[in-house]
Amino acid sequence: MSSVNINDLAKQLHLSKSTVSKALRDSYEISQETKKKVLELAQQLHYVPNPYASSLRRKKSNTIGVVIPEVADSFFSGAIKGIESVAREKGYHVLIYLTYENYEREKAILKDFGSGRVDGVLMSVSSETPDAGDVKDTVDKKIPVVFFDRVVEGMNTAKIITNDFESSYEATSHLISRGCKRIAYLSISKHLTIINKRMEGYQKSCLDHNIKCFDDDVVECSNDNESNFALVKGILSKKKRPDGLIASVEKLTTPVYRACKELGLSIPNDVKVICFSNLDTASILSPTLTTIRQPAFEMGKTAATILFKAIEKRNFQLKKEYIIIPSCLEERESTS
Amino acid sequence: MSSVNINDLAKQLHLSKSTVSKALRDSYEISQETKKKVLELAQQLHYVPNPYASSLRRKKSNTIGVVIPEVADSFFSGAIKGIESVAREKGYHVLIYLTYENYEREKAILKDFGSGRVDGVLMSVSSETPDAGDVKDTVDKKIPVVFFDRVVEGMNTAKIITNDFESSYEATSHLISRGCKRIAYLSISKHLTIINKRMEGYQKSCLDHNIKCFDDDVVECSNDNESNFALVKGILSKKKRPDGLIASVEKLTTPVYRACKELGLSIPNDVKVICFSNLDTASILSPTLTTIRQPAFEMGKTAATILFKAIEKRNFQLKKEYIIIPSCLEERESTS
Repeated sequence: MSSVNINDLAKQLHLSKSTVSKALRDSYEISQETKKKVLELAQQLHYVPNPYASSLRRKKSNTIGVVIPEVADSFFSGAIKGIESVAREKGYHVLIYLTYENYEREKAILKDFGSGRVDGVLMSVSSETPDAGDVKDTVDKKIPVVFFDRVVEGMNTAKIITNDFESSYEATSHLISRGCKRIAYLSISKHLTIINKRMEGYQKSCLDHNIKCFDDDVVECSNDNESNFALVKGILSKKKRPDGLIASVEKLTTPVYRACKELGLSIPNDVKVICFSNLDTASILSPTLTTIRQPAFEMGKTAATILFKAIEKRNFQLKKEYIIIPSCLEERESTS
Repeated sequence: MSSVNINDLAKQLHLSKSTVSKALRDSYEISQETKKKVLELAQQLHYVPNPYASSLRRKKSNTIGVVIPEVADSFFSGAIKGIESVAREKGYHVLIYLTYENYEREKAILKDFGSGRVDGVLMSVSSETPDAGDVKDTVDKKIPVVFFDRVVEGMNTAKIITNDFESSYEATSHLISRGCKRIAYLSISKHLTIINKRMEGYQKSCLDHNIKCFDDDVVECSNDNESNFALVKGILSKKKRPDGLIASVEKLTTPVYRACKELGLSIPNDVKVICFSNLDTASILSPTLTTIRQPAFEMGKTAATILFKAIEKRNFQLKKEYIIIPSCLEERESTS
């Protein structure tokens, strides 16, 4: 706590608390001379306004909350940079909340937002979040919420997404054009819209190219590296193993590469691999990794820009809309 | 904002505000019957206490601030996991502030802490931070601050570090044992204690092994990937180029690998490479990367545990101490 408060300033200047407070807020009711005296002393004593007191008065926390599953993913670290670039300009703090893909934890965070701790929320839901239920409660509490990347359907607000269906369709078609006859899709959730859209893009491309998708070609992975490694090894050990893999999230890269290495399978000769990833190291892996790169910075920046419209303008209603910023396929050795 | 406040509850129950408030705090002054009535209505109307109002009363924010340079680094994302594991147990929120290695931004963040927004701070300073000056001001404001990894000297508080000198000494000795005759050290800051300790470990090992260190063998890199790439290419293009490289931070890995590739230099045959890094992908790079792996999770967890002692116990004084958790060398192909 700063040791100097408005009381101290008022006492030293022989002014009322309310006069000091108004002077600090540059009120027209206070003379220039008095304002000057107050500001000089405030500066001299290193007075810092208490944000909780001023939050109560203005009902503003000057903070936005960012709810994401994790930071150990280059998509989210890139999106945070985009969000910060906007928040910094507005003089807002960014409070980063991590759900670690846990729905109970996400609910606890959302409940806390009901109490005015933040002025607005940017959110990418956990892989366990089944529907809009609890999120809807937060929005109903009149805190503006904008979704990015991992959105939930049925919410009357803005959603910033990428072209998940189309880019996955393109990735699959790319594998097929490189000769793949059986392609597996590595999912991480049955709930997440983006993961399902990517699955649909994969299935549609297979259908359009007369490639059969078997039920066990869609594999649900988890958040644990070791069990994902075992799972991928299992798929690649089968008699009729896939010759193409699409990994729906970045963290599946290492298990896939490790499994191929351990089984003595060559990427790309035996198995071609493509991954939804913004990994900086994609270009120095062995072999270099073909990726679908998402516009992380741009998505974060766009989401924050829309959120601030709602925060700054009284009665501004976020409308139900989808803003789509396309991803791009970056071809490298793993599919050559 | 939650639409229901204490006033609303009081009105509906025909009770005074102070009675409702005391009932909600389970005060002994209020009868069990009244408490029950108040709690039932509070539940029914989804009443959530305003954290700013209760912060003012209790002078607690139930939030700790974590100040770090970035999240796109696996050391920091690992440390955050360690911090969260403790904060979650204590029912605290973790507010993540990013400095992006910018000292002015760091100062602005620290200034904000003076106002009671957080109950304690965990900090890893930016690569531009020259000394303890502004950090000392925060500590002087009676908010407990614990440092981890990137510490500043001369502060009367706890600092959780790893054995930077020793592990860098070990890394250098490892390169020498593999036949390196001229080793370059890639720094990212002249100010950071940890980067300088790592440099000293490198220099001492060279000295002990009669390997000469030239002035231009210590190279100061920046936060920009492209200029680091150009810089490393420059070093490796020299007539008397180094045959060993120690990268002091993870983000230098990609520029180093790319530079070797572009110059047609083989890792490890022409240049051996070792990197301070917790990268998950170290084991799937081409070639796999020898690393000094820091105990990120443990360091974050230990720092948070000490901070909470100071937060929870009135008059608990953080003492000036260093807690050292050792890193470990993980040998892979890049130094074989």
